Amino acid sequence: MINSRVATMPPAPDRAFASDNAAGAHPAVIQAVVAANDGHALAYGSDRWTDEAHARFRDLFGPTSETFLVFNGTGANVMSLATMVHPAECVVCSEWAHIAVDEAGAPERALGAKLLTLPAPAAKLVPEQLEGLAHLQGVQHHAQPGVVSITQSTELGTVYTPDEVAALCDTAHRMGMLVHLDGARLSNATAALGGTVAALRSFTVDAGVDVVSFGGTKAGLLGGEAVVYLDAALAQRAKYVRKMVNQLPSKMRFVAAQFNALLDDDLWIKGAQHSNQMALQLYEATRHIPGVEFDHAPQVNSLFPQLPADAIAALCDWCFFWDWDISRRQVRWMTAWDTTADDVDRFAAGVRHLLG
Amino acid sequence: MINSRVATMPPAPDRAFASDNAAGAHPAVIQAVVAANDGHALAYGSDRWTDEAHARFRDLFGPTSETFLVFNGTGANVMSLATMVHPAECVVCSEWAHIAVDEAGAPERALGAKLLTLPAPAAKLVPEQLEGLAHLQGVQHHAQPGVVSITQSTELGTVYTPDEVAALCDTAHRMGMLVHLDGARLSNATAALGGTVAALRSFTVDAGVDVVSFGGTKAGLLGGEAVVYLDAALAQRAKYVRKMVNQLPSKMRFVAAQFNALLDDDLWIKGAQHSNQMALQLYEATRHIPGVEFDHAPQVNSLFPQLPADAIAALCDWCFFWDWDISRRQVRWMTAWDTTADDVDRFAAGVRHLLG
Amino acid sequence: MINSRVATMPPAPDRAFASDNAAGAHPAVIQAVVAANDGHALAYGSDRWTDEAHARFRDLFGPTSETFLVFNGTGANVMSLATMVHPAECVVCSEWAHIAVDEAGAPERALGAKLLTLPAPAAKLVPEQLEGLAHLQGVQHHAQPGVVSITQSTELGTVYTPDEVAALCDTAHRMGMLVHLDGARLSNATAALGGTVAALRSFTVDAGVDVVSFGGTKAGLLGGEAVVYLDAALAQRAKYVRKMVNQLPSKMRFVAAQFNALLDDDLWIKGAQHSNQMALQLYEATRHIPGVEFDHAPQVNSLFPQLPADAIAALCDWCFFWDWDISRRQVRWMTAWDTTADDVDRFAAGVRHLLG
Amino acid sequence: MINSRVATMPPAPDRAFASDNAAGAHPAVIQAVVAANDGHALAYGSDRWTDEAHARFRDLFGPTSETFLVFNGTGANVMSLATMVHPAECVVCSEWAHIAVDEAGAPERALGAKLLTLPAPAAKLVPEQLEGLAHLQGVQHHAQPGVVSITQSTELGTVYTPDEVAALCDTAHRMGMLVHLDGARLSNATAALGGTVAALRSFTVDAGVDVVSFGGTKAGLLGGEAVVYLDAALAQRAKYVRKMVNQLPSKMRFVAAQFNALLDDDLWIKGAQHSNQMALQLYEATRHIPGVEFDHAPQVNSLFPQLPADAIAALCDWCFFWDWDISRRQVRWMTAWDTTADDVDRFAAGVRHLLG
Repeated sequence: MINSRVATMPPAPDRAFASDNAAGAHPAVIQAVVAANDGHALAYGSDRWTDEAHARFRDLFGPTSETFLVFNGTGANVMSLATMVHPAECVVCSEWAHIAVDEAGAPERALGAKLLTLPAPAAKLVPEQLEGLAHLQGVQHHAQPGVVSITQSTELGTVYTPDEVAALCDTAHRMGMLVHLDGARLSNATAALGGTVAALRSFTVDAGVDVVSFGGTKAGLLGGEAVVYLDAALAQRAKYVRKMVNQLPSKMRFVAAQFNALLDDDLWIKGAQHSNQMALQLYEATRHIPGVEFDHAPQVNSLFPQLPADAIAALCDWCFFWDWDISRRQVRWMTAWDTTADDVDRFAAGVRHLLG
Repeated sequence: MINSRVATMPPAPDRAFASDNAAGAHPAVIQAVVAANDGHALAYGSDRWTDEAHARFRDLFGPTSETFLVFNGTGANVMSLATMVHPAECVVCSEWAHIAVDEAGAPERALGAKLLTLPAPAAKLVPEQLEGLAHLQGVQHHAQPGVVSITQSTELGTVYTPDEVAALCDTAHRMGMLVHLDGARLSNATAALGGTVAALRSFTVDAGVDVVSFGGTKAGLLGGEAVVYLDAALAQRAKYVRKMVNQLPSKMRFVAAQFNALLDDDLWIKGAQHSNQMALQLYEATRHIPGVEFDHAPQVNSLFPQLPADAIAALCDWCFFWDWDISRRQVRWMTAWDTTADDVDRFAAGVRHLLG
Repeated sequence: MINSRVATMPPAPDRAFASDNAAGAHPAVIQAVVAANDGHALAYGSDRWTDEAHARFRDLFGPTSETFLVFNGTGANVMSLATMVHPAECVVCSEWAHIAVDEAGAPERALGAKLLTLPAPAAKLVPEQLEGLAHLQGVQHHAQPGVVSITQSTELGTVYTPDEVAALCDTAHRMGMLVHLDGARLSNATAALGGTVAALRSFTVDAGVDVVSFGGTKAGLLGGEAVVYLDAALAQRAKYVRKMVNQLPSKMRFVAAQFNALLDDDLWIKGAQHSNQMALQLYEATRHIPGVEFDHAPQVNSLFPQLPADAIAALCDWCFFWDWDISRRQVRWMTAWDTTADDVDRFAAGVRHLLG
Repeated sequence: MINSRVATMPPAPDRAFASDNAAGAHPAVIQAVVAANDGHALAYGSDRWTDEAHARFRDLFGPTSETFLVFNGTGANVMSLATMVHPAECVVCSEWAHIAVDEAGAPERALGAKLLTLPAPAAKLVPEQLEGLAHLQGVQHHAQPGVVSITQSTELGTVYTPDEVAALCDTAHRMGMLVHLDGARLSNATAALGGTVAALRSFTVDAGVDVVSFGGTKAGLLGGEAVVYLDAALAQRAKYVRKMVNQLPSKMRFVAAQFNALLDDDLWIKGAQHSNQMALQLYEATRHIPGVEFDHAPQVNSLFPQLPADAIAALCDWCFFWDWDISRRQVRWMTAWDTTADDVDRFAAGVRHLLG
């Protein structure tokens, strides 16, 4: 049945739904890189593009924040944590945390510290879980909870409300812990929470977060992330630590120029709003197709549908996406800043054709 | 005297002599990045640009070599060494080695291993120095020499002959050690040794080197390096280790596309030949100026002149370069792939004007 | 009610039930230390006591095994794992594992590797859990499962059967993993499984375990453990690694002499048999007391009763023991090689008096 | 000639001159261990022997000092440094430092930090060498000098005067560095500098040292060292770090009891005075023997004579000692707390017989 329909699939979308990091760079970003390729500029950040990027980040996060540009998300997370964790402390995070699951042990290697993973069905921690660690404190046999790292938006496409982040920060700080926010998809969370700089600030600066990994790559850069210290005291050794974790770009102007384009005129928010909107449209266009099951509507740019087992491979062959939990026949569809309504329509048509 | 001449300095060069990483990217590299920004492509290396780059590196280093693209030089070195060094081993290198001096302790952090630095007036090790470590072998109190890392061209602008590298490799292997070559400026060494792929192979594959950090950034990329395993057995865990040391590019096609442009038609060698040539011209144009002292002619693209103490700051203000050893009034002048003869002429004219 | 009974508690035991490491050293062990204090002997293991200890361990584990004496259990575990785990691999263990919970992050620090903890209600892993990690294998984003570490007897006082260990080893080896056995209480497990050297071998050598942490301290030493390589190939770098993890005793004869006494005439097994027997007697003597609830009879030397909330502090004041899970009113009673029947009787009498 | 004399060597000493860690434990130490084996005592330091040891160390180093007992010297050093060094900092030490040369890379592994070794012909650093590191400070490419570690008495048997230590501390502190003192042979230095507690304090507390590794093993223990925080603020995480570096003794009373005996009535100083005195006697008894050359008289308990090449093996076979620098025909003779005048006489007689 499926097989016969495979042969007659409609045209596939130009862009698949594999991941937001399968998308290219925004044209404005490319243009900025081309423009920055202008003669010589001192390396390692002593250039005007980097100065501008730093200023732009201060505009976002406040004049006392301090920002360091880096290469990638794992690097941003490891650098952040390496400046936050003390010897014999552990980093507390959800069982879904990218740092715990998808970074090949980079944090443990660079920090020499334990990651203490807590159960989190929706990839979100709650203050009570931190309080539940109190029995570890002061006991010499246990790594001491030193940092809590949360992801916003999460690895499961959920979003912390500003109040939820604030409550976590309050509890963490009261217990003597610092708070790191892995914002590989910070733009999508910002879009979901209002799409303004005020929204960004509501769940970072205003909520009490100490250090943010600010994602650029998935938001439309060729490649580039930033570590933003909201607590500038933590930045004291940051520049050395950046080098120590292999994250000091030599020709930094080219990372900075990308960010200058992305941060200009809220391009990063607009791209994420669009990406989130495309996910919602895909959800609406497929949720009523027999055999497609969603747990809930998307909050950001990822969908985790369950599909009939025999349809997954055929659909994937036609237009690639990744499995998520094969035991549940669950897959992941993800939109990007460049996903078009036509991509969504074609993809939904293909799903409908195959399953209908 | 100097002061009066400062006021009448001739026009400064368009490009200073601060460093080869102050240069931008080659236009062909930029063009390749623009062209690669073509719709979606799977992340982390599952793309056709990366396939092409891997093939190009196999063309250079042989069909059994295996290559991994990374972000930067420190990352390439740390990744290389992390796949080579065993627990309780040390990495042997010269006292001038970039890994020992200029990487903020990144190797020690990522490897958990000692760097054993040996004296090397010209930044070059000799086999006898390795043999001198034999007394460490087998003694449980000492970190065991496991890897020797050499730099080609060296941090002092010297170049190992192929025979010298081969002799080091022979001794190292006979003693049970592996050999890493830090090739942040591999292109300049290749140019200096003949400017052919055969020249490249003469001091790497043919000489018995095990793993090479292949420099792209200084050769004209926006940013990008490669780790090349000549001994493919050492690559067994390389892909995981790359991620573990924060060096897995997400949108890898943009690093790969840069390399594809650079490796095409020996662009990387031509740029280095030019750069080396410009250094030689600068040497010839300044060596007879009173007060300018050189120890020797440049072998690659760096000069280390000694200058009158009172001239350094003035010259530096006019056209920036870095101090090298202030106690000896020694500075560093460095050319790049884009240095022009006009830059050299203007700079020499400025030096002559100031000191003359 | 409780309060009035507190005032009239019967005499407390001479030895409490806090832990087996609250016990002192066996007199034969002390005597051996005194005897070894005989003039000069070369340090770091070049002495006849250490030779003897090595031979005694070969008698236990076979002629190709190789043994290294160390200071403590955390050190034995870290040394074992440091010789077993490769870069970017993780160590798989139960959520109760001492290495994960009670070693202050020592493994992550010394190994630079992740500990991947799996749920295990009885602190025992099963092969299916290892098989469930197959999806991590070969994926560059994930730390690769490299070693599985099990504890025998476990942190919850349970015991793997030889067949269970063999099944885990088979699965682990088939998946390319090595197996470490944390035997801080190996003596108690040996006693529980038959009390012979054959029993010891049945769940170690014969089952396919690669490296064993052999516990001496809890079995009656002043302090001392051993790392036993059943796969001698893994011992290749062991002596350097021992030093690297701070576990090379200077005057090693004094650690060796202790082991020579403990291993003589199966003293280590006899002490554990006695300790296990005392736990069983304590179980029988208290299980029918109203308010005392056990999940099951003890397999080795620890009991985890639930007690009335208001009785715990009073009982603890009278004769100290540790809380286990305060939310369940659960405590731990533990016997040692020197616990006497009189200690058990007195303690049971006190419990009965307080709760009766 | 030598050969014929070998056959007629006089009786060898009862105790050789291999090392002070070839000596056994002082009888008072053994007696204390036996006495401490008295029933049960809580593990990990919650016992009266440990309380007493802490008090004794406060008597030595002042009421605000804080002490942690550990197993061995490498462990004491690593623990000290792990609480002192920040991310991306390096530890500055002499090229002869035990931490750099004789600990198999343990510091680099546990700290994830570089050891920056400075030339030091007599194994002693001077303030000017620290000042010479100022060019590293503030530059993001370089590991930042964070801690200076000195050894007292040094690995070459030299002794810093209190003024020399104070000058180093002043410079280090002014430059923002902390000072660690590796006192594996602190007792010998104390003896050499006056043999009083005031002498000990003159080059530690009074000189401004921050953390001391206090050696017990070489001074007459079975095994045991202490980390003493003179700056109590640095001890904040010490108890967790001790566990993290595998240095928390389980049955700690047995380490504490040894120290209680050693510290009682200045036994540790008296033993070192004797040991130093024996070295001086050996020097006087052998310095005029033809073929025996000394650079200088011993300051503590080690001698580094140069001997005729053909005599070394024969002498060594007769009464073992270690080579030091075979290229210079230099060996090491070391006395211990238990060396007797008869041992010295016999040894000198043997040397005289062989060379005479």
